[in-house]
Amino acid sequence: MEELAYIEGQFVPLSEAKISVTDRGFVFADGVYEVIAVYNGRAFRLEEHLDRLATSANAIHLSLPVDDIELKKVIKSGIEQSGFQEAQVYLQATRGAAPRSHAFPSEVQSNLVVTFRPLHLVADEIRQAGVSVITTEEIRWSRCDIKSIALLPNVLAKQKAVEDGAFEAVWVTKEGIVYEGAASNIFVVRDGEVITPPKGKKILSGITREVVLQCAQDLELPVSETTLRIEELLQGEEVFLTSTTMEVLGVVDVDGNTIGNGTVGPITKQLTDALRQEVG
Amino acid sequence: MEELAYIEGQFVPLSEAKISVTDRGFVFADGVYEVIAVYNGRAFRLEEHLDRLATSANAIHLSLPVDDIELKKVIKSGIEQSGFQEAQVYLQATRGAAPRSHAFPSEVQSNLVVTFRPLHLVADEIRQAGVSVITTEEIRWSRCDIKSIALLPNVLAKQKAVEDGAFEAVWVTKEGIVYEGAASNIFVVRDGEVITPPKGKKILSGITREVVLQCAQDLELPVSETTLRIEELLQGEEVFLTSTTMEVLGVVDVDGNTIGNGTVGPITKQLTDALRQEVG
Repeated sequence: MEELAYIEGQFVPLSEAKISVTDRGFVFADGVYEVIAVYNGRAFRLEEHLDRLATSANAIHLSLPVDDIELKKVIKSGIEQSGFQEAQVYLQATRGAAPRSHAFPSEVQSNLVVTFRPLHLVADEIRQAGVSVITTEEIRWSRCDIKSIALLPNVLAKQKAVEDGAFEAVWVTKEGIVYEGAASNIFVVRDGEVITPPKGKKILSGITREVVLQCAQDLELPVSETTLRIEELLQGEEVFLTSTTMEVLGVVDVDGNTIGNGTVGPITKQLTDALRQEVG
Repeated sequence: MEELAYIEGQFVPLSEAKISVTDRGFVFADGVYEVIAVYNGRAFRLEEHLDRLATSANAIHLSLPVDDIELKKVIKSGIEQSGFQEAQVYLQATRGAAPRSHAFPSEVQSNLVVTFRPLHLVADEIRQAGVSVITTEEIRWSRCDIKSIALLPNVLAKQKAVEDGAFEAVWVTKEGIVYEGAASNIFVVRDGEVITPPKGKKILSGITREVVLQCAQDLELPVSETTLRIEELLQGEEVFLTSTTMEVLGVVDVDGNTIGNGTVGPITKQLTDALRQEVG
């Protein structure tokens, strides 16, 4: 088994995959991406990921260099060649290599890089115990709905979380509005209702978020997409995060405040299991 | 003469300079940069640029892989080897190549890339006629004082300007506060006073901005660093932009509104000449 990259139309070992230093992804963060989990050799919710990639590309007026049919072939072939049954497929499309000038270059081909690595899920002990999160003041741009590679704010927030002994940082505005984590969506359970902030320009429309909302409905749990305030988060019976690699991950502590009784709650467990059924 | 890059401690032709697709600059926009103009073989305000690079790196907790002494040697050598007397030196430091995970990697060496290309200044006809700008709604993150490579909002704004037949886009908040251009600082002349917004988290502290403020003082022009409103911009006797590659550039039209009498004003010309004296 080997970590691979698809670049310039070829598969190469990941360690040999290189891009021009003039690529606009490197110079301007001028690109978009997707992270896809592969379970048992099968890319989970592939259609949804490719749809979202197209939406992100469209939002920044980027033409992808290949169509969905070709992209699916690349992903299938990469998974097979890598030999990983449980893999993390990372796709990144950038506006290509060009002399440094902010406006779009004319007649430059966009670049597509796809990497294939082992899937690193959250360890079982951590999942069972639940994680701590910190809140951090919202400092991001106004278009967090675009899955762009301009992730420096997210990097800084996540690093702050790690330094504080927490697993994730959650963006909260000065006015106390809770949006999402640096690399996850957030849910709270209140009076048995599963609540998450509604889609909008400050929320990345998570694919796991959508699957979990569907799972909750299938389990006949009441569900609401509603603006969430920090007080509501702290008073939640349960809190959990969702993302492709976190799946459903219980939160037992927010900024040092214990959530519920400090253990992963029953609805979080139900949804963790329901998602596992989906991916299995 | 040849476009060059310094990468992994070596000078190579720019077209051959490549970086790992796992470099955090490419994946997370986890890096900072500088653009330095070289006139007559001499890097203009090199100390100030290196100081600002250090400030930006410090703000994102990035250790630069080389010190200032080494960096100056690289820049000097690159200019000489490229053969360009008038050059644009671009420095980019990123948090190195690592498996994709938002938090900082441990024990990963940061990467430094420096490129050497011909200096493309604004053409004389354009400078003499002055340029048009558009205003665009502020959508950037809260730390625009850090010269980071997370420039996607700036790319989109500049592209919008180009599509509208304008030279630059200027960030203006919903409340009407004017900050700066997508790749420049902005000045307005009112009652003979030279006004620019004060330094702060929404303003990149431009080196040309500082030089021009000093030139204005040397010319005994009244100078003020004050919050600027869109009405004041539109009613300015003169408006101009500053940046390393724009130098001092007169603006004669903002969103279709003629500034002054529609020609580059006398104070703009004075400051253009004063800056030229400095770089000469």
